[in-house]
Amino acid sequence: MEMLYEGKAKKIFKTDNENECIIYFKDDATAFNGLKKDEIYQKGIVNNKISSRVFEFLESKGIKTHYIKSISDREMLVKAVEILPIEVIVRNISAGSMCKRLGIDEGIEFEKPVLEFSYKNDELKDPLINDDHAMALKLATKEEIDYIKNQAIEINNVLKEFFKNLNLKLVDFKLEFGKTLNGEIILADEVSPDTCRFWDINTNEKLDKDRFRRDLGNVIEGYKEVLNRMG
Amino acid sequence: MEMLYEGKAKKIFKTDNENECIIYFKDDATAFNGLKKDEIYQKGIVNNKISSRVFEFLESKGIKTHYIKSISDREMLVKAVEILPIEVIVRNISAGSMCKRLGIDEGIEFEKPVLEFSYKNDELKDPLINDDHAMALKLATKEEIDYIKNQAIEINNVLKEFFKNLNLKLVDFKLEFGKTLNGEIILADEVSPDTCRFWDINTNEKLDKDRFRRDLGNVIEGYKEVLNRMG
Repeated sequence: MEMLYEGKAKKIFKTDNENECIIYFKDDATAFNGLKKDEIYQKGIVNNKISSRVFEFLESKGIKTHYIKSISDREMLVKAVEILPIEVIVRNISAGSMCKRLGIDEGIEFEKPVLEFSYKNDELKDPLINDDHAMALKLATKEEIDYIKNQAIEINNVLKEFFKNLNLKLVDFKLEFGKTLNGEIILADEVSPDTCRFWDINTNEKLDKDRFRRDLGNVIEGYKEVLNRMG
Repeated sequence: MEMLYEGKAKKIFKTDNENECIIYFKDDATAFNGLKKDEIYQKGIVNNKISSRVFEFLESKGIKTHYIKSISDREMLVKAVEILPIEVIVRNISAGSMCKRLGIDEGIEFEKPVLEFSYKNDELKDPLINDDHAMALKLATKEEIDYIKNQAIEINNVLKEFFKNLNLKLVDFKLEFGKTLNGEIILADEVSPDTCRFWDINTNEKLDKDRFRRDLGNVIEGYKEVLNRMG
């Protein structure tokens, strides 16, 4: 298979059908704009499974995603999209870089979710941008921006409930959207402990990539706990 | 007079009237979050004059400002306000920190002005924020945010024209808004070569604080040129 793209945690391959691609989930983990790197044994398998379950759930709630089906332990068949160069971050509880940037404590529950855009650009370290920057840089049109914001809010609403039922707080998460060959914008990338913060609803134990970022140990055990709770 | 506040370039004094304050314009100049400091002889006098003219013009166009009158070379009588901790930056042409952050060249004219909010907080180095951050931090309400954005756009429209008539391009500028004792939000702070970028319309010569930031020399001469063009 011809590889189209290799990212930090995934590879994307062509298929015979121009409308479909295969995502291969790697065990590689990076943090702090690539400064910290490691391999987390079996992470790719766990993230493929978690992402598949989440995409299936989102589709059942009427959210359009790139997900077609999981085809092996590490491979997901997806619709071919061109990724919009905007990362959409949804925050329900303060955590991570935001706390440092704004001088606030971790763990503050926001009255309404805080949405952020980052310009997806490794060289610039994915800088925070606002709607006007996105338009000035021609990353997306006003209509596309409004659409992905509304989608992000809707996804947050259904996922918060989904993870609450697993006794997990959905602290924050990063979404990427893509445009299909016929111009439709759909949710792409992955939804996993690499891209979300999950805290146990009772103990606030971190069950996500912060275990790796902060050297908390038991990284894959945290990821597997999220998967196990999905049954 | 009792000093209420001393900033990098101004001091604010109480008056006998609780609804009024006096701004004293200093010669001190700082840049890069205070890392670069100097004194620019007569800057305070020139900025008081330029700001006064600009506020008078804005008032004539129906924009509500804190300006009452200039009372001496370095002193302006203004309405007492509580400053909103949001700096509003309006950009017509790319310049300065934005170019580095977003990896773009200086001098790009935007199709529509780019608005930015910074959280006014020296310790955090005035970080870029979006509307959601402003609300989450309770810096302003949704209604206040919409209001200051609309005011910023309106101010940009009239000031672009004003400075065009002086053969100056209004590249970008920073505004601060304040709340009066009766809760009205009005334009405050100053509008001067300290807070705006002005380029000569024909030569693109910089006639603003970038002369200081970038060691271009003739700093006060640049400021005075702006004032002179006001007649």
